[in-house]
Amino acid sequence: MSPKKVAFQGERGSFSEVAAKELVGNDIIPIHCETFEAVFELVESRRAILGVIPIENSLIGSIHKNYDLLLEHDLKVVGETQARVQHSLIALPNASLSRIKQVYSHPAALDQCRDFFKKHPRLEPVTYYDTAGAVKMLAEKKLDNTAAIARPYAAEIYKMKIMKKSIEDEKSNYTRFLLLGRTQPGFQGRAKTSIVFSMKNQPGVLFKALSVFALRDIDLTKIESRPVRKKAWQYNFYVDFAGSIKEQHVKKALDHLSEITHFIRILGSYPMRVVRD
Amino acid sequence: MSPKKVAFQGERGSFSEVAAKELVGNDIIPIHCETFEAVFELVESRRAILGVIPIENSLIGSIHKNYDLLLEHDLKVVGETQARVQHSLIALPNASLSRIKQVYSHPAALDQCRDFFKKHPRLEPVTYYDTAGAVKMLAEKKLDNTAAIARPYAAEIYKMKIMKKSIEDEKSNYTRFLLLGRTQPGFQGRAKTSIVFSMKNQPGVLFKALSVFALRDIDLTKIESRPVRKKAWQYNFYVDFAGSIKEQHVKKALDHLSEITHFIRILGSYPMRVVRD
Repeated sequence: MSPKKVAFQGERGSFSEVAAKELVGNDIIPIHCETFEAVFELVESRRAILGVIPIENSLIGSIHKNYDLLLEHDLKVVGETQARVQHSLIALPNASLSRIKQVYSHPAALDQCRDFFKKHPRLEPVTYYDTAGAVKMLAEKKLDNTAAIARPYAAEIYKMKIMKKSIEDEKSNYTRFLLLGRTQPGFQGRAKTSIVFSMKNQPGVLFKALSVFALRDIDLTKIESRPVRKKAWQYNFYVDFAGSIKEQHVKKALDHLSEITHFIRILGSYPMRVVRD
Repeated sequence: MSPKKVAFQGERGSFSEVAAKELVGNDIIPIHCETFEAVFELVESRRAILGVIPIENSLIGSIHKNYDLLLEHDLKVVGETQARVQHSLIALPNASLSRIKQVYSHPAALDQCRDFFKKHPRLEPVTYYDTAGAVKMLAEKKLDNTAAIARPYAAEIYKMKIMKKSIEDEKSNYTRFLLLGRTQPGFQGRAKTSIVFSMKNQPGVLFKALSVFALRDIDLTKIESRPVRKKAWQYNFYVDFAGSIKEQHVKKALDHLSEITHFIRILGSYPMRVVRD
């Protein structure tokens, strides 16, 4: 097999790149995108075979932008994985902590290292668009009084020094990623299915929707409501559940659901990734 | 009545200040906080009578941080309101658009004005911690080649010029705010109640939880799941519904719910704000 072109958001060394290799294998041709939109567009236009997006973080919650993009684009979810978030303080190989004044990173990463900044009040956190991008910028500009917060993998890629490992406040911090493709693949083993639907704004509608799963003992693994654009305070519901659309009881449940929804779309059935801690 | 001390996040001219005046009246003593945590802490420690926090935006979705803080602190939700989000391009009174190079604002505001930046590719968006804070910074530093994106109210407060009004991509964009206090007040009229609960991770548990409302024709206005800290992929559910905890059928529903939940907390019953468009 020749290496596959896989698109993801972020610079070389980004968390999505780590996830892409975990999902597809080390032998990929990585396509670095500036935005999540670009990931969807590249797969849709066949300039990439697959795309990888973060969808949910165990501390922060869902990455809403990507839920919206799943709806705007016509791609299939073909896989999932998760990885633990580890933040390191990274600087030039010759840097010393006593001379560091500013620390660049994505706002979410800065926010997850508050205890570190409390312990080092001399260090000023500065927001940057991307964690790995901050490491790249330090490496290119050779700023020796500046550090970045990113994953250890970013230090490796840009030949930088890890000054402090695991400076995140909360160690139980995982991000779940989805693999996107153009077609639904066949596979063996336990499956998970992701769907999105909307309902009329009437009492008890969500209860009715969930009944189609409960009546068939189908286990919901996630439910997420997202505002519908241009209709304030109306919601789309994103539901993940155990089972494949190829199974009879799942087909029946979705038939039943479509009787009571405004709109329903199956985002994909894919191999379920069992949680490791 | 003497003016009440009301705490909220943001500089003078912030969106929360507008909401605080709408909720409590113009005659307040505003207490500007740097963080949402500080708002909760000031009300809890009686340094403020009331606090105002944004909880949900009709485009972006919930403000997760504040859902988490509601759980961490022992305050009551005593009111709600909502306001339309309007972004303006704001600069010094003598600034001209042709000389503006950089535009400072909160990342969410920059993201909501993408069409504007596409039309003006010469303008570089720069992330800043706060929208009104960006206007304040321009006013103080007298940067005449720089603009900020914030609400018109911020221009008024800092005596700056509105260079372009309503540059947001999406006009149907509302933020919902909650009013926080230490005690549950009495009131007349239609009520809304906010609760949070968690359940065992078993098939059909959410269906059972929603049944306590559906069986009593209680209308859910919002459901939100948030990851439980330190327990990856377990969720707390935040539910808003029509009715007051003083009503008999609501009491019964919550009794019923507490039979099947791990944990349940009533965040408050408060006057329902009917949506205006």
